[in-house]
Amino acid sequence: MDDVKVFAPNTISNVGCGYDVLGFPLEGLGDEVHVSKRNDSGLRIKEILGADLPLNSEKNVATIAIQALLKSLGEDGGFDVSITKSISPGSGLGSSACSSVAAVYAVNELMGRPFTKSELIEFAMEGERASSGAAHADNVAPSMLGGFTVVRSYDPLDVFQIPFPEELLAVVIFPNLEVRTEFAKKILPKKISLEDGVQQWGNMAGLISGLMGNDMRRIGKSMMDSVAEPVRKVLIPHYDKVKDAAMTAGAIGFNISGSGPTTFALSDDMNLAKNIRSACREVYQRNGIEVFSLISKINPEGAHVI
Amino acid sequence: MDDVKVFAPNTISNVGCGYDVLGFPLEGLGDEVHVSKRNDSGLRIKEILGADLPLNSEKNVATIAIQALLKSLGEDGGFDVSITKSISPGSGLGSSACSSVAAVYAVNELMGRPFTKSELIEFAMEGERASSGAAHADNVAPSMLGGFTVVRSYDPLDVFQIPFPEELLAVVIFPNLEVRTEFAKKILPKKISLEDGVQQWGNMAGLISGLMGNDMRRIGKSMMDSVAEPVRKVLIPHYDKVKDAAMTAGAIGFNISGSGPTTFALSDDMNLAKNIRSACREVYQRNGIEVFSLISKINPEGAHVI
Repeated sequence: MDDVKVFAPNTISNVGCGYDVLGFPLEGLGDEVHVSKRNDSGLRIKEILGADLPLNSEKNVATIAIQALLKSLGEDGGFDVSITKSISPGSGLGSSACSSVAAVYAVNELMGRPFTKSELIEFAMEGERASSGAAHADNVAPSMLGGFTVVRSYDPLDVFQIPFPEELLAVVIFPNLEVRTEFAKKILPKKISLEDGVQQWGNMAGLISGLMGNDMRRIGKSMMDSVAEPVRKVLIPHYDKVKDAAMTAGAIGFNISGSGPTTFALSDDMNLAKNIRSACREVYQRNGIEVFSLISKINPEGAHVI
Repeated sequence: MDDVKVFAPNTISNVGCGYDVLGFPLEGLGDEVHVSKRNDSGLRIKEILGADLPLNSEKNVATIAIQALLKSLGEDGGFDVSITKSISPGSGLGSSACSSVAAVYAVNELMGRPFTKSELIEFAMEGERASSGAAHADNVAPSMLGGFTVVRSYDPLDVFQIPFPEELLAVVIFPNLEVRTEFAKKILPKKISLEDGVQQWGNMAGLISGLMGNDMRRIGKSMMDSVAEPVRKVLIPHYDKVKDAAMTAGAIGFNISGSGPTTFALSDDMNLAKNIRSACREVYQRNGIEVFSLISKINPEGAHVI
């Protein structure tokens, strides 16, 4: 194989109480990365569609991630890379992660699969390090593996999937504003109170057991966040009003997707999901903010060849 | 019914990463509380066997818990209470909790069950408030309900049980030393770093999914504690050596029970459990410290009439 095209989905991370730990991918929304072998060495980005990003392969997260993979094998290319992005960085939907994931997945295919999907995660995390200053895995892991994904530990990396209710739907609300991940990370407190911590891991126990036990009420009650939501929501205009609108319209739970400004609600019913979407859109429209929205199942597959 | 005797089991709380949130009860070890109706009002403690505790009903956790129950019903007794304790307070096995739980369970029986088991938890928590200064529920809830119990939220109180592998065994190691719960609470940091928090809720996700998915390896890897173990273990002589001995002997995981000095290991095999117990006992015996030990299944039933 000299040529492969890979899709990797956008992701919703944190999911309330799971800051830096939990995430899931969407269906239909994600990046396509096309990689072709060349006879010479080095990486070259031929084009990037859908976002205004540098073609310099030393500055692009996808080629930085590929470089990490190649380095671990003692190889040096050469590959041509074309990227079609679904959404610009700064959305809170793991835009940089899905480029990195698709890129390392594609190169792994072209090299005869020296690595498993799980092993590829660490290379994609190098793209995250370049993009946000920290090699976090809560977008990369679900985009790669699919399903609800837990990053239990970073050192050593321990990632796994957990069962979830098949009927779960995410209502994704993306106001047309950019929040810089780097900044959204910086405003987080370096220390949290023990009480806030206890709430967070209590909710985590509730969320995981709710997901595994198909208990929608428990999932909803557990989608609380004592850590990131209180400080990050101030970067998202009308956050409380949108959350109120979603909950009133019957959402199981509502929170910020990653570092925002995208927010999401969970539902287990398509009609309710449509009402939730309308209610949230209406808040933004009333305030003159353009909004993109989407209703998606949880993507069970993650990255794959197309 | 004028007279009832109730058993409530001792408990292991925290279970590594679940400070103030997670716990499970033991089989065979617990308090018996005998309550008889009187014709006049008020509470009277007739005797306490097994521990040197005050007979003053305003100072005993069991009668303080009963008082909270009676107050909520606008009643004022009268009951005679006799308590047989399995173990002294300060063990880390929820000694005060099982007296409070058995006491409110018994009085609820005598009054014709105005409350469910779950509703009784808040009254038993008043005993905990009197004993340690904080109305925590991580011993009271599992002692009452049985099984692995999560206290997801304190305000409002939200408690539930999660499925766990039936074959799970706890090896309980209780060196004959007292650690005052109040002191063990005081030495905890008031704030924790965000990194420690992320580790803690990552491990919580691992522990819950390991328990619900019968994954012993994941249970073991997740029984980490970034919050209480590092500071509390210094109150427990030879802690690191005992933990090393247990893990070398094949324990799935090992940690402090509640605020110590009792420690425990988990295993899924009786022969391994016996080896783990011997290895831990040996460390204490070599150092001239008397040790009580026990191998117990997870008690699925909690408080019950005997």
